[in-house]
Amino acid sequence: MTLLPLSPRETARRRLLDALRREGPMARVEIGQHLGMSPASVSELTASLLDDGILVTEDTGDQSSGLIRGRPKVRLFFADSLGSVIGVWTGFNRIELRLVDSAGRNRASRHIERPLRSLGAGELMDVLTETITTFAKDTGAADVKAIGLACQGYVDTRDGIVAWSPVLGTRDLPLAAGLSERLGKPVLIENDASAMAFAIAQRNPDFRSGRTACLMVGDGVGMGFLIQGELYRGARFGGSEFGHVRLRRSGPQCRCGGRGCIEAYLADYALHRDAQLIDHRPAPTLLLPGEEAMNGIVEQARAGDPALLNLFHEAGEVLGDAVSILIQTLEPDHIVICGPGTRAMDLLRPSFEAALESQTIPELRALAAVHVVKSSLDLLTEGVVMQALRELDLDLARLKAA
Amino acid sequence: MTLLPLSPRETARRRLLDALRREGPMARVEIGQHLGMSPASVSELTASLLDDGILVTEDTGDQSSGLIRGRPKVRLFFADSLGSVIGVWTGFNRIELRLVDSAGRNRASRHIERPLRSLGAGELMDVLTETITTFAKDTGAADVKAIGLACQGYVDTRDGIVAWSPVLGTRDLPLAAGLSERLGKPVLIENDASAMAFAIAQRNPDFRSGRTACLMVGDGVGMGFLIQGELYRGARFGGSEFGHVRLRRSGPQCRCGGRGCIEAYLADYALHRDAQLIDHRPAPTLLLPGEEAMNGIVEQARAGDPALLNLFHEAGEVLGDAVSILIQTLEPDHIVICGPGTRAMDLLRPSFEAALESQTIPELRALAAVHVVKSSLDLLTEGVVMQALRELDLDLARLKAA
Amino acid sequence: MTLLPLSPRETARRRLLDALRREGPMARVEIGQHLGMSPASVSELTASLLDDGILVTEDTGDQSSGLIRGRPKVRLFFADSLGSVIGVWTGFNRIELRLVDSAGRNRASRHIERPLRSLGAGELMDVLTETITTFAKDTGAADVKAIGLACQGYVDTRDGIVAWSPVLGTRDLPLAAGLSERLGKPVLIENDASAMAFAIAQRNPDFRSGRTACLMVGDGVGMGFLIQGELYRGARFGGSEFGHVRLRRSGPQCRCGGRGCIEAYLADYALHRDAQLIDHRPAPTLLLPGEEAMNGIVEQARAGDPALLNLFHEAGEVLGDAVSILIQTLEPDHIVICGPGTRAMDLLRPSFEAALESQTIPELRALAAVHVVKSSLDLLTEGVVMQALRELDLDLARLKAA
Amino acid sequence: MTLLPLSPRETARRRLLDALRREGPMARVEIGQHLGMSPASVSELTASLLDDGILVTEDTGDQSSGLIRGRPKVRLFFADSLGSVIGVWTGFNRIELRLVDSAGRNRASRHIERPLRSLGAGELMDVLTETITTFAKDTGAADVKAIGLACQGYVDTRDGIVAWSPVLGTRDLPLAAGLSERLGKPVLIENDASAMAFAIAQRNPDFRSGRTACLMVGDGVGMGFLIQGELYRGARFGGSEFGHVRLRRSGPQCRCGGRGCIEAYLADYALHRDAQLIDHRPAPTLLLPGEEAMNGIVEQARAGDPALLNLFHEAGEVLGDAVSILIQTLEPDHIVICGPGTRAMDLLRPSFEAALESQTIPELRALAAVHVVKSSLDLLTEGVVMQALRELDLDLARLKAA
Repeated sequence: MTLLPLSPRETARRRLLDALRREGPMARVEIGQHLGMSPASVSELTASLLDDGILVTEDTGDQSSGLIRGRPKVRLFFADSLGSVIGVWTGFNRIELRLVDSAGRNRASRHIERPLRSLGAGELMDVLTETITTFAKDTGAADVKAIGLACQGYVDTRDGIVAWSPVLGTRDLPLAAGLSERLGKPVLIENDASAMAFAIAQRNPDFRSGRTACLMVGDGVGMGFLIQGELYRGARFGGSEFGHVRLRRSGPQCRCGGRGCIEAYLADYALHRDAQLIDHRPAPTLLLPGEEAMNGIVEQARAGDPALLNLFHEAGEVLGDAVSILIQTLEPDHIVICGPGTRAMDLLRPSFEAALESQTIPELRALAAVHVVKSSLDLLTEGVVMQALRELDLDLARLKAA
Repeated sequence: MTLLPLSPRETARRRLLDALRREGPMARVEIGQHLGMSPASVSELTASLLDDGILVTEDTGDQSSGLIRGRPKVRLFFADSLGSVIGVWTGFNRIELRLVDSAGRNRASRHIERPLRSLGAGELMDVLTETITTFAKDTGAADVKAIGLACQGYVDTRDGIVAWSPVLGTRDLPLAAGLSERLGKPVLIENDASAMAFAIAQRNPDFRSGRTACLMVGDGVGMGFLIQGELYRGARFGGSEFGHVRLRRSGPQCRCGGRGCIEAYLADYALHRDAQLIDHRPAPTLLLPGEEAMNGIVEQARAGDPALLNLFHEAGEVLGDAVSILIQTLEPDHIVICGPGTRAMDLLRPSFEAALESQTIPELRALAAVHVVKSSLDLLTEGVVMQALRELDLDLARLKAA
Repeated sequence: MTLLPLSPRETARRRLLDALRREGPMARVEIGQHLGMSPASVSELTASLLDDGILVTEDTGDQSSGLIRGRPKVRLFFADSLGSVIGVWTGFNRIELRLVDSAGRNRASRHIERPLRSLGAGELMDVLTETITTFAKDTGAADVKAIGLACQGYVDTRDGIVAWSPVLGTRDLPLAAGLSERLGKPVLIENDASAMAFAIAQRNPDFRSGRTACLMVGDGVGMGFLIQGELYRGARFGGSEFGHVRLRRSGPQCRCGGRGCIEAYLADYALHRDAQLIDHRPAPTLLLPGEEAMNGIVEQARAGDPALLNLFHEAGEVLGDAVSILIQTLEPDHIVICGPGTRAMDLLRPSFEAALESQTIPELRALAAVHVVKSSLDLLTEGVVMQALRELDLDLARLKAA
Repeated sequence: MTLLPLSPRETARRRLLDALRREGPMARVEIGQHLGMSPASVSELTASLLDDGILVTEDTGDQSSGLIRGRPKVRLFFADSLGSVIGVWTGFNRIELRLVDSAGRNRASRHIERPLRSLGAGELMDVLTETITTFAKDTGAADVKAIGLACQGYVDTRDGIVAWSPVLGTRDLPLAAGLSERLGKPVLIENDASAMAFAIAQRNPDFRSGRTACLMVGDGVGMGFLIQGELYRGARFGGSEFGHVRLRRSGPQCRCGGRGCIEAYLADYALHRDAQLIDHRPAPTLLLPGEEAMNGIVEQARAGDPALLNLFHEAGEVLGDAVSILIQTLEPDHIVICGPGTRAMDLLRPSFEAALESQTIPELRALAAVHVVKSSLDLLTEGVVMQALRELDLDLARLKAA
């Protein structure tokens, strides 16, 4: 990440590229409306971007309905000759990969089961390098411009360092530099919940105004917090480790070494661990339970198994308490619950709502809208790819504006 | 168990047999001192017991020191021709067996690893029957008079029914009748913590006066409570399920289906489960961790591993809170912490003592003496065998007194 | 209290007097049926008691219905010439007094508001002596044979010492001896919850068989535990301080100095303290809220005030957790919730039942019957008077049996 | 508050006025260095501000040390003829007032004890109006330009509405408009913890870069959160109600109607309430304890009273847990503990530090520096006055720049 301030002209280019990235192809008049720019300014800016080969035009038939047919609109969008970007997510025992072209179109994706927890720093980077290289080769990825990698833990996004992670055996891992050196490409890294929050905010303009807290529930629990559409950054430019807020002294063991963390109730591994004790179901083959195993638990609970229902009751209460903390601490305009864990939202909801009601001041609770966005791991690679593309756009905005 | 009241003569016979059972061989004069009986009464009682073949005499050399040598003492004890008794303990995945003769001498013992949790009622009884029969045959057990079986759970000791157990898949299991029918012998069943409490109380007269609560920590956590040396019996003649007192709402999952039970922190399975999450050690091969696995955790904690130390810190706090509840509820004269879990008492002690101090009223805490009795699973079979022998003695006291 | 064993004849006299005390006047034939004694034995015993002037006869009309009229029954009961007994209860800021004759008939009672907390040991005894003496004089109490005094705290019933009390400023107070010396009469002291438990058990034979735990809720929370109708005694012959089981680490402050005790949620003072904070109602004039103040809170909650309703919701949950501990620890046949706090049982019940369900093993919960006995402070003095009369009966049984 | 964007020239004026407000009088060269402006720009800007009568010059002797003496520096600062500002803080039962001139110099202050909780909306505004008017008259306040008012609760700083407050009996109170109408002056309102955070950040440049969370402990507990020196604003432009995060389910009652809020352990009223129960000290005369009463508790605890020490132990643990939540949620660079409650920091510290250690991930804890800033209620009025002056400066920057 570069932090130099932009000139006014660079800023204008960036705003235009950001808008196209988010909204998709737009005609010049739409761009003007969208950004509040004069037609002249739009013309001048787009001309330069077309000249630079960054944007291309695409003709569309007239899409207005009704009697009077207008002339065909010319829409502008990113040239797909600008190269491609690979997005990667590393879980505890899984790697997700995604290849997109410069226009943001998905070209290929891959899912790999691979335990990463036991690897040393060098080994881990070697495995990732090889995995990414193979994926690029297999998919015929042309001209990869950058890699975006999302992972659990506290990520120094400026220096590309994983300061701490519950799933990696190492600490203060210079992951971006290590991969960048091995791959010969720029590598951007991000906390995975922040990546998902970013992806979700790109899809819904409401989440880009005011303050939006995205609580991602799945392999773990994370939070991405956006202020006016930009990710909040704490010390060392990291995000949040809200999932490790220790909500219940003397609660269940968490894999971070603490007890009673939010994720020790809500994460897939936690629910599966507790289900194992209840009915002696087999342990996951690869350390963490897969989607099928989790669906098994959910179905059995829905069928009325009282002890399994109780797991979701407890988890829902913790989710409600967690959202209450967010409300009383940050008073966000929007709270989004997302991630694979939303698969059981019907089971979580009763105790979630009861907890939310009992643990917040009604006047404050009323200020925050709670949304549930069903979302698979796909959104993670989508989010980090979007961020990587945006970084590239920043370079385009900056370098070619000179 | 039979509950008919005894006649005064039967009572006297029983007290004599009880004393011999507990104290070992005694001379007539010692018996008289011990029971506060006149020499005439002792003579009369012992004569009848010798006639009946229940007791035998054994000559000892004079054991008095000093110049004047007395005449050799004649001690009385149980004839070993009265047959033998088999004691059994069934854990989650283990069976312990012990053969003793009527004089209470250990003749053989055996340890078997065998998962029992998944068995149906009939299957379970068949497995136990076969295990006991094989053990009796292999050890050449002569004239087995009775079987005593200790198991986890709430045991209706009068009707021989396991009303509920965290380790058996069945409920209201008529275990004594089922085994008795299959084995053709009387079978007595008991909660295992009660059996251990009984064994411990036989070894220490202090624990047979006043009120003694024995907290057994190991595979699970149980409590045997003695008033004046006799086991306290609750509704349906069961003991206590103190280990499933849910001490911490929202605490870790327990195998009883609840959360935050005392044993969900202190039992071997709980400590091992949490250690697995901390450092990804392998799961136990047979559902529950063995002694070696538990020693591994203890050693690693003693070596300073902070997350493992924290497990014992938490467990010690729960133990302290548990003992505080016993003090404030029952105000026992003695509290005994026993069972395999005492292996880590050095690690548990600091937080145990801090919790005990913070959670009790000092004046009340001062009234109860806390003891730690290192004790392996052996004490369980010892306890239940002693109870079975005592039941037999009761028959001897009653039937032959007529 | 005297602890010498009784002879068989003394025992028989005691059983007869106990039965009359409990059941009221009975004919000889009824006594025989009740105690399982032969007519001859009953005749002989009652003759001696009539001779001693302990019992008197009272003629009744024939009460049989139907055609054939029997001859009038002669019932036996205590002579009222045996003197009287005074029962006293000391609360934080109140004294209750009751005078009964030897037949157990209530002759007078009195309620006094008087802060006792700040008094030293001597002062306290002086105040009580004067209060009792004045009461005796005002009521024309003839021939007071004994005083029974019930108070909060851990009471050494053998030596008559208040070992610890949350309401008295002193520790290890030799209250019985101090009062006895000042009053020149025997004084029996008892924990107040034990006294209430005793009174309740006298009224309902179910509570005198098996195990009965009486949870008294009011000024504080206490427990009296009965095994086969006799009060359980812990170390130093005290009862239980179950109300100070610290159920919630970090819970509200209790007047015992700890936090999160059962009574810190359920006692009148706790509910009133919390209500004060909610709606700034005035503090109680005499340290503890009176019945009127408590009724005000209850009425307001019943009318729908959400914050006050929440107080009872929380208190009910604590009550449920408390009863769950009793079930899992002692498995009583009967659990009785009693005392002035039952005034709000309708408000406590929903969360009480939910907690009971979530915090116990269903199979064990099913073994205990839960009863609510509405009971005012009257039962306290009734209970301690009954105990004092029973002690006197013991003397009658013993001394005159010689 | 006005939210119109500033022109570049307005921005430059504002930055210059901000710097003078914060740093005090500066020479032109210092201003240039401070703001990174060219001498020409500084000259031009200051000339216009001097012309407008906003700034004045003040001569100083040469303060350079060494051989070569320079010519006297001319420093620039605010004219004190621009009028004055009154800062007000309203507590539960107290009002603090402060008069400052336009140069930010304190001219007068006043403390008034007055219960506000029971007043209706109109009454409250009348009382405040009269109090402010009297104060202005008594102190001869010349040309009052604005009033800044800090109060507890969630404050909509844009619309001047107290959305919710634990101390006012009303909801959604249009306090700024109501006072403004009555006083005929602009009124700015702010949450009091935010005001204190603002004041503290003006004094220490470290707290104006990165993220700083100020936890104010005193009458209640509040938090002001600054990002790059600007107060974080949640929904409806309010701050945070972090003090009402319900940290402990089933904890002590809070005056917000919930249980287990952070302030229910840490606020003065909470500590005093619990101390009352422990040793029966008298209730505060005016609902909330004053400084003297709180010092009494602190001194007694320091002298070793175990039950009072335990209050601070518990409060310190809650403080540690609270800071842990801030770290794991927001990862601020600085955490400042401030307010009158810091008077007992020595008593809070041991359990505070233990909680901080046990409840956070060490790598994340290391990123945040924790500071304790002893601070009385004075800082509250100072903070809100500074904010009001800054608003006035904004007008000066804007209006006169045209």
